[in-house]
Amino acid sequence: MKVAFQGEPGAYSEQALYAYFGPVETLPCESFDDVFAAVADGQVESGMIAIENSLAGSIHHNYDLLLRHQLWIVGEYFLRVRHCLIALPGVEKSEIKRVISHPQALGQTMGYVRAMPGVKSEAVFDTAGSVKMLKESGDRSTAAIASRRAAELYGMNILAEGIEDDPENYTRFLAITPAPVTPAADAKTSIVFSLKNQPGALFKAMSVFALRDIDLTKIESRPLIGKPWEYLFYIDFAGSTDDEHVKKALDHLGEYALMLRVLGCYPRHRPA
Amino acid sequence: MKVAFQGEPGAYSEQALYAYFGPVETLPCESFDDVFAAVADGQVESGMIAIENSLAGSIHHNYDLLLRHQLWIVGEYFLRVRHCLIALPGVEKSEIKRVISHPQALGQTMGYVRAMPGVKSEAVFDTAGSVKMLKESGDRSTAAIASRRAAELYGMNILAEGIEDDPENYTRFLAITPAPVTPAADAKTSIVFSLKNQPGALFKAMSVFALRDIDLTKIESRPLIGKPWEYLFYIDFAGSTDDEHVKKALDHLGEYALMLRVLGCYPRHRPA
Repeated sequence: MKVAFQGEPGAYSEQALYAYFGPVETLPCESFDDVFAAVADGQVESGMIAIENSLAGSIHHNYDLLLRHQLWIVGEYFLRVRHCLIALPGVEKSEIKRVISHPQALGQTMGYVRAMPGVKSEAVFDTAGSVKMLKESGDRSTAAIASRRAAELYGMNILAEGIEDDPENYTRFLAITPAPVTPAADAKTSIVFSLKNQPGALFKAMSVFALRDIDLTKIESRPLIGKPWEYLFYIDFAGSTDDEHVKKALDHLGEYALMLRVLGCYPRHRPA
Repeated sequence: MKVAFQGEPGAYSEQALYAYFGPVETLPCESFDDVFAAVADGQVESGMIAIENSLAGSIHHNYDLLLRHQLWIVGEYFLRVRHCLIALPGVEKSEIKRVISHPQALGQTMGYVRAMPGVKSEAVFDTAGSVKMLKESGDRSTAAIASRRAAELYGMNILAEGIEDDPENYTRFLAITPAPVTPAADAKTSIVFSLKNQPGALFKAMSVFALRDIDLTKIESRPLIGKPWEYLFYIDFAGSTDDEHVKKALDHLGEYALMLRVLGCYPRHRPA
């Protein structure tokens, strides 16, 4: 089995991928678009994509890709993001003059990096890629910000761990494949739909779940800017599309919705 | 009147601030936390903060700051984010070897920058600040990514405009002050609340709006990670807290909610 992810070996996505799939072959991709394409083309069996972060919100671009492709969500994984300050073996923190990482990791550790006097930060295209670059350059005045796994993979030294400004930093990942699955138990289902923008429309749509005691685990509206009367809604709920009451609820929702798409049905991950 | 914003003169927040408040004095702040503190301490009358972006989702950290402080939302503004590639006057695009900007702007223009052969990108703490730094350095091989306003403010040249990878790039800003306002017409209200996590709880909460024909403009659930049974909900709706039916709806919601906070009531911005 081969699974695509966005980033270089040692990326947080790869960490989530191994935690979810176990020891599989991987295909590192430059962009999320490339991950979707690799799964759609059959180059790999599955992809692992980030969908939301507890500080930065939902990655709307990946919802757009889910709508654009005919792929299915078959699993989810919540990863606690712990950034490390990584340098060549033997280098002290006081020697560091420059820090490199992915723009988002730099943003999430800005407080820590600002407190290092005279240190500049530089964006590169990947957290793990920054460790690889640092290893290749042999530069003793630069540190990378990435996962513990990236440090270990490239034989580098961790100067500090957990340097993110906010410890409530979790990223939710989704496993995607060309064919849907049917989870045995504790299933979750993700849907996207749009409604006529009129008072009470969303309430009516939600009644199809409430009347059947279906528990929602996520709800999010996304206004379509430039189209002020159109909204997309993302809903996740407990239950499988094989359950009779879920089938009825979706059938019922289909009567109201302008568009309705089931993105997948998968075993729920309950992080400790 | 003096208004605080996060960033340097020429920042997108400052652009939103002038568009919303007109010609006022401004106080540039290093962080969103500093903006809230400046308003809370009475150093300025108002602050202008980013709350969500059409690609990157809600800035949960600023919702946290709204809950931590006793300040009120008194206005909103949707800004179309158009990134420019900015260099010293007389410099050609082919001379550029390095691009500097805020990590988020670098992330949103990654496709464009990757297509510039051999160009490296470097993160700095502000989009407009990157233009100021570039001007001061006189470096002809570096370009900054920032707003048109930042280029004009520092007398720099725009090599390319609208270089963001996705044109549907809008940021919603909120004006905050120590005292609430009462909008004359076309009002919007923002609330945050939490509920017992049980099937149908959100549906009951939403019924208080639906039964009174109150139109929701935003709904978002935010799971509190590590507390798997607790959720925060963000709701924006059309109407003023002075309207009798809104008062009744909030009173009614208060009966179900574990926590309920009205963040403010303000004139709705309808971007063209």
